[in-house]
Amino acid sequence: MIAKILLDKKREGRALGSAEIRGLVDGYTKGEIPDYQMSAFAMAVCCRGMTARETADLTDAMMRSGACLDWSDLHVPTADKHSTGGVGDKLSLVIQPLAAACGVAVPSLTGRGLGLTGGTADKLETIPGYNAGLSLAAFRKVIADVGVSMTVQTQEICPADKKLYALRDVTGTVASIPLICASILSKKWAEGAGTLVFDVKFGKGAFMKTVEEATELAVAMVDASKAAGRKSAALVTDMNAPLGYAVGNINEVAEALEVLRAGTSDGNGPSSVSWLEADFVRLSVELASLMVSLAKDMPLDDARRLCDEKLADGSAYRKFREMVQAHGGDLDAFDRRAKKGAFRFRLQAMRTGYVSAIDAEKVARVALSLGAGRMEAGDRIDPYAGVTLSVKIGDRVGSRTPLATLEKSGSPDGLEKAASELLAAFEFSPTAPAPGNLIVKRIA
Amino acid sequence: MIAKILLDKKREGRALGSAEIRGLVDGYTKGEIPDYQMSAFAMAVCCRGMTARETADLTDAMMRSGACLDWSDLHVPTADKHSTGGVGDKLSLVIQPLAAACGVAVPSLTGRGLGLTGGTADKLETIPGYNAGLSLAAFRKVIADVGVSMTVQTQEICPADKKLYALRDVTGTVASIPLICASILSKKWAEGAGTLVFDVKFGKGAFMKTVEEATELAVAMVDASKAAGRKSAALVTDMNAPLGYAVGNINEVAEALEVLRAGTSDGNGPSSVSWLEADFVRLSVELASLMVSLAKDMPLDDARRLCDEKLADGSAYRKFREMVQAHGGDLDAFDRRAKKGAFRFRLQAMRTGYVSAIDAEKVARVALSLGAGRMEAGDRIDPYAGVTLSVKIGDRVGSRTPLATLEKSGSPDGLEKAASELLAAFEFSPTAPAPGNLIVKRIA
Repeated sequence: MIAKILLDKKREGRALGSAEIRGLVDGYTKGEIPDYQMSAFAMAVCCRGMTARETADLTDAMMRSGACLDWSDLHVPTADKHSTGGVGDKLSLVIQPLAAACGVAVPSLTGRGLGLTGGTADKLETIPGYNAGLSLAAFRKVIADVGVSMTVQTQEICPADKKLYALRDVTGTVASIPLICASILSKKWAEGAGTLVFDVKFGKGAFMKTVEEATELAVAMVDASKAAGRKSAALVTDMNAPLGYAVGNINEVAEALEVLRAGTSDGNGPSSVSWLEADFVRLSVELASLMVSLAKDMPLDDARRLCDEKLADGSAYRKFREMVQAHGGDLDAFDRRAKKGAFRFRLQAMRTGYVSAIDAEKVARVALSLGAGRMEAGDRIDPYAGVTLSVKIGDRVGSRTPLATLEKSGSPDGLEKAASELLAAFEFSPTAPAPGNLIVKRIA
Repeated sequence: MIAKILLDKKREGRALGSAEIRGLVDGYTKGEIPDYQMSAFAMAVCCRGMTARETADLTDAMMRSGACLDWSDLHVPTADKHSTGGVGDKLSLVIQPLAAACGVAVPSLTGRGLGLTGGTADKLETIPGYNAGLSLAAFRKVIADVGVSMTVQTQEICPADKKLYALRDVTGTVASIPLICASILSKKWAEGAGTLVFDVKFGKGAFMKTVEEATELAVAMVDASKAAGRKSAALVTDMNAPLGYAVGNINEVAEALEVLRAGTSDGNGPSSVSWLEADFVRLSVELASLMVSLAKDMPLDDARRLCDEKLADGSAYRKFREMVQAHGGDLDAFDRRAKKGAFRFRLQAMRTGYVSAIDAEKVARVALSLGAGRMEAGDRIDPYAGVTLSVKIGDRVGSRTPLATLEKSGSPDGLEKAASELLAAFEFSPTAPAPGNLIVKRIA
């Protein structure tokens, strides 16, 4: 009966009160409000929207449906970064230990990949021994000991979100800024970090296709987080082309390690320094700087200098290695595994020119078809499967210049066909394309 | 999976195709599409609307979920009238036999009352012996023999509408012109009448509160019916005050009989002729004329003359009596029952002036509280319960002038309290109010 009144109200485009939203979410979580009322509510929100206050209330109610972590006993600033998901997005592997190396504790509950975008947990699990399924107690201990932990969100976190997302998925109610916002934020708020930085991606390889949509979501997330007393900022970033070079799992971890190790004795020496100019490294430093700046109340330029230093001197790498060890992982074993490799096929250019576009969605589809991701939850991932680009936009190629390497386990079957599909992801131009902006907006 | 695509489309405000709508309704009727998808669809329609084509497709699909009648073997024109429901609305009791007396077969599936508006079936069942629960085969026989039958819609008609309406009722998705339109029309189309005339009411005693809403629904119903090859017209009529004098069941049938019998030997003689000037009689003739005019392709003025004649010469009354007999009813027994009466209380005016308003909703609530209707489906009705007005808007009253009689069975308990509530339904003015328009618009 209550639900019906709220449905009428929302259908008419009126804002709901905090207690009304809490009642709806609580009732739904307990099973007192049936799916058919909640799906009608979700559709009404899709069509009529929500105010920032309503979005914050919805997020808060969803957060409170499960465990909420509190880090005040650590007496250090806490922060986390969330990305809306992209192709080749191994940012967390660099950012979270980098921020931790700067003295910010990073309690990061992460997810598994589904569809076109990979999951950080899947990537970390390619490190032999790495346990991405810590209990909340064990997670808490790693944070206290190391200052950073990345593990899969447990069942105790936001059961309301899980239930609502499954319903939205089958009722055409995914595409709503307030609902997307509440789904993302409720899980992040439950982590208890005092600072939240968002990487909101747009373009071919992202959930949001346009800058406008991404900006709308970024503003909604920052506003709602601030309304809930959390320090928050967001970057709106281009995801038309893959981030960095590797799209897969083992190859993405290897790329992240290459960046983390650039200035260390574990690294490949001076050649690696070129990475520091690349899109992936630049975005990692920008996002980590935002986290450190907000969490430690430090000017952004100072935070950026600190992050550059902690990345270059190997502090971030050491923090990553400590975290891997605390999770039972073995980086040496990972290096051997990565070096061993699987079946490979090299795609070469067939013409001369400049690379003018690399379609992130097409690259992701090829990687997915090789086994790098899951079509459906529960699918097994081939850790070796993926695409490693040899070129980036703006690079000059001639006939036979390597464009990318495709890799998979088991047998070479399908590699050549996948390579021909991958070729369609590349566009070439006779002259060098104008450089694009990776970071389009900063919302603070 | 299909449903999800349609939901996305409708959420974005795009029109669905005929096959898509048919697939949705078929799937829902068969239980293949779950409630939570259908409720999201209903909410999307509430928010985004539907084109006339989509509304016609939805109506058609809902109609085809059950039995569809066909009267082509009768070789006479067929018509029916539908009202959106009002207070004191006993129009069907006069209109349907009147149209039949003019040579138009009237297959009329009707409903039971719920909430503030009464049901024609409940009224007919106050006639001892009247069977308002005919099978479709028996209904068909009465139509063939008499030319008019009024019986409760059977389970075979529009199961999709029944299922969808129950869902809309608990998901805040009742208020949508296309959904209301499809719900009403699917049942009427299933009756198979070639002409459909709608009485769309607005005001205090109607579902639609404003002329604008009522007009929107009237246009939607006429347009969709025409799109489906049915001749159709609508009147938009004022339901701020009760129609006629009686609000109840036995008293409404008695009022209808008084009109039908006005020119016959069963009637009360010349005094009854005054009825012919009243709102109830005027609207009855207008609606019946529209049915006859469209069904017989006859100019409206000719149809109106024919209806006046068939009402005045007792043909309509004889048709009604034939129909009652064919349903097993006994009008003489009804007259005895009506005369016997129950416990009564007379409400008198306490001041001098002109009646300027009689609030239909308040009158209906009082009648409902006396037992004239159902709060919930399944409640038993007291056939005697109701309110019979003694005055109409514009009548001059002095202190002690009778305003209305309240009646109920069992005991007089509650009559006096109900009378004090009924008094609040009346407004008075020192001068005669300007006459209002009963029929505000004709949509053809």
